[in-house]
Amino acid sequence: MENGMMNIEAPTNVTIKGILGTLMANIDEEKNKRVISLGMGDPTAYSCFTTNTVVQDSVVQTLESQKFNGYSPTVGLLQTRRAISEYLSINLPYKLLEDDVYITAGCTQAIEVAISILARPKANILVPKPGFPIYELCAAFRNVEIRHFDLLPDKGWEVDLEVVDALTDQNTVAIVIINPGNPCGNVYSYQHLKKIAETAKKHKILVVADEVYGHLAFGENPFVPMGVFGSMVPVLTLGSLSKRWLVPGWRLGWLAISDPNGIFKNMKTVDRIKKYFDICGGPATFIQAAVPRILEDTKETFFTKTLCLLKQTSDICFKKIKEIPCFTCPQKPQGAMAVMVKLNVSLLKDISDDIDFCFKLAKEESVILLPGLTVGLKNWVRITFAAEPSSLEEALDRIKSFYQRHSHQQKGQPSQYNSNNTIFL
Amino acid sequence: MENGMMNIEAPTNVTIKGILGTLMANIDEEKNKRVISLGMGDPTAYSCFTTNTVVQDSVVQTLESQKFNGYSPTVGLLQTRRAISEYLSINLPYKLLEDDVYITAGCTQAIEVAISILARPKANILVPKPGFPIYELCAAFRNVEIRHFDLLPDKGWEVDLEVVDALTDQNTVAIVIINPGNPCGNVYSYQHLKKIAETAKKHKILVVADEVYGHLAFGENPFVPMGVFGSMVPVLTLGSLSKRWLVPGWRLGWLAISDPNGIFKNMKTVDRIKKYFDICGGPATFIQAAVPRILEDTKETFFTKTLCLLKQTSDICFKKIKEIPCFTCPQKPQGAMAVMVKLNVSLLKDISDDIDFCFKLAKEESVILLPGLTVGLKNWVRITFAAEPSSLEEALDRIKSFYQRHSHQQKGQPSQYNSNNTIFL
Ligand SMILES: Cc1ncc(COP(=O)(O)O)c(C=O)c1O
Ligand SMILES: Cc1ncc(COP(=O)(O)O)c(C=O)c1O
Repeated sequence: MENGMMNIEAPTNVTIKGILGTLMANIDEEKNKRVISLGMGDPTAYSCFTTNTVVQDSVVQTLESQKFNGYSPTVGLLQTRRAISEYLSINLPYKLLEDDVYITAGCTQAIEVAISILARPKANILVPKPGFPIYELCAAFRNVEIRHFDLLPDKGWEVDLEVVDALTDQNTVAIVIINPGNPCGNVYSYQHLKKIAETAKKHKILVVADEVYGHLAFGENPFVPMGVFGSMVPVLTLGSLSKRWLVPGWRLGWLAISDPNGIFKNMKTVDRIKKYFDICGGPATFIQAAVPRILEDTKETFFTKTLCLLKQTSDICFKKIKEIPCFTCPQKPQGAMAVMVKLNVSLLKDISDDIDFCFKLAKEESVILLPGLTVGLKNWVRITFAAEPSSLEEALDRIKSFYQRHSHQQKGQPSQYNSNNTIFL
Repeated sequence: MENGMMNIEAPTNVTIKGILGTLMANIDEEKNKRVISLGMGDPTAYSCFTTNTVVQDSVVQTLESQKFNGYSPTVGLLQTRRAISEYLSINLPYKLLEDDVYITAGCTQAIEVAISILARPKANILVPKPGFPIYELCAAFRNVEIRHFDLLPDKGWEVDLEVVDALTDQNTVAIVIINPGNPCGNVYSYQHLKKIAETAKKHKILVVADEVYGHLAFGENPFVPMGVFGSMVPVLTLGSLSKRWLVPGWRLGWLAISDPNGIFKNMKTVDRIKKYFDICGGPATFIQAAVPRILEDTKETFFTKTLCLLKQTSDICFKKIKEIPCFTCPQKPQGAMAVMVKLNVSLLKDISDDIDFCFKLAKEESVILLPGLTVGLKNWVRITFAAEPSSLEEALDRIKSFYQRHSHQQKGQPSQYNSNNTIFL
């Protein structure tokens, strides 16, 4: 096959799923420890995070009706678009229309669509660091440049708007905001979101609001959708059933154009979105068809239960992290399903960085954490707290004993001692 | 928004779904005629083409088990990959392994994956004309050049291998074969497929075998999967549940690497495929989980019933086409769900081409056909015969009266008269 087929180059970026797979493969099965993964944002691995029966029954119903085995319109079923537009409008000062909503294969495909309709020669997009690597990967595929702005750990992971100002130029087309935040577990205040909107307006760029964790806020700040500022600046709102309804495997998401003044929305954009879907298609038709009933009939109690559980597990996580000297958590999680924790490698005698930490932890303790590098922060780790409380506790206990084995100091010595003692560094 | 967002250019290519949508919008509702669409390959619009209960029950079962609401591995569930590898191996002289199979969102995403792993600077791919426009669209997205070889209407739509020889150069990476054929309804003989494999081997390119209509052969030639020649030349086999199981809306497809000698398959390729899936994901997990039982338990009688029906409707179609003087069908369909028909516009007084024909037909008769231009042949039309027999007959009767209204000759005159009379041209 000299004909070049061997020259195929794989993109070099890492993906969360890619690295978690490698970590999993690194587990030492002879240790005979139950694997606890706090690596991925898939709570359904734990039986306490199960979707509601009404959610499931809705799909059984549409499936058994035999009316939805055919292709759906490429942009999604009308009734599904309408139901989602109504669902999103509840929290907005204006009404979204069914035509503003496109049905996607999970929020992942919504990201793909957003990037692909924003792509043009020389375009750049601003994305948060730490962030969600799919943005980089999609942008690379479309030859869109990515510029990273910092989230500030000491200010509740707020956007560093000065950096945003500095990064923006005439080729900047959009800024991506993930709220509630993955990987940091933050929830932005109304005021901060407004400042972001003002900054975007000033630079004449639009906001891509990744709200895949929409409504999963259990701390001080309530969830405010970015679309609230849609009259100030056009917003592409991305979401899915994955997290709030605990069905990430269903691949049902959406992209909504929250642009009541029609600044971004125009024939060309709409044409371009439609063209995208003509090629790629969306989720299974019968799952789409179930969405109106799912949105209508899911009880508030189901949502409340999830939030209580996430509050509980995030509290456990935050408390236990404090007992592990090499970890610092700058902010108590307020939303979503994961938290970023700073790793102090100088306290550890034989760990070079976050990747090394996660690999050795997987091997020795059968606990999976996500290395921070994957989401843009070297020597941090991401811990998913959407897990069974007992598993979470056990995992953090194992991490603690992992720390103790690998720390410079002897077990029992005050942790202050060595962390300030540069002799070991 | 001077910041360039208005400059977004839509890709210019037409898509089947795009043009059918436009045709639908062109229907004159005041005519009050029932719309009959022979435009798309979605038989589920007709109740005679309904999937089997076991197929549906399998999905209800996996859904209700609550075990498959989470993310699947990005390349697909292991049991699904295994079941499909076994299913495909039945007709091969060697065994495919589970690792050779990747689960995709319909055959559409399998095309996407195939093109994206073949993409590299300057690469070109050979695709049939007439063909399936998704290939062009995906290739355009990946900057892969498309070169068209002809299918020969007078030789049962066989591949013009001389043209293939002439088109191939050192940057050619693959040739696409659609068999059973869409849009032509042909089924290639073992001998012809062998010649294609030999040609590919000679040029050191691989074969992309689009077998989305696999096993839907009801004529003289049995269906032979291209993978049969996998030892001669690496084959990427693309398929889905869509057509054979009559569930196109489920978005469950696959890409299999049929390459027993490991010529194409190597770490880099596999890495690249995995990377693709890390970004894009595949179909819903619970639908994937149902595949083993679907493949195991679907009765032969269900398949036979579909084939009988397709034979019947293709016969009706072929017979009725003969009664419409402006239509010529070079070959009786032997497989798949559609047939290409040559349109003689010189017999029509006010129709300029196939697009004009289809638009006026939609408006006046509420019958939808696909203009041949969409699949690469101007002044041809594609007729889908996977329809209720009575609807098909009525549609073709309406086309006949459409012809009569628009033909140069008076009704009742012998049709020979004007078609040979150049006075009108
Ligand atoms: C920030 C963010 N965006 C998008 C996604 C993808 O969501 P989905 O599973 O609906 O495709 C995730 C998944 O974890 C996420 O964390
Ligand atoms: C030749 C060909 N390839 C691929 C596809 C797409 O198949 P799916 O619906 O499984 O995505 C079709 C659909 O009609 C087709 O005709």
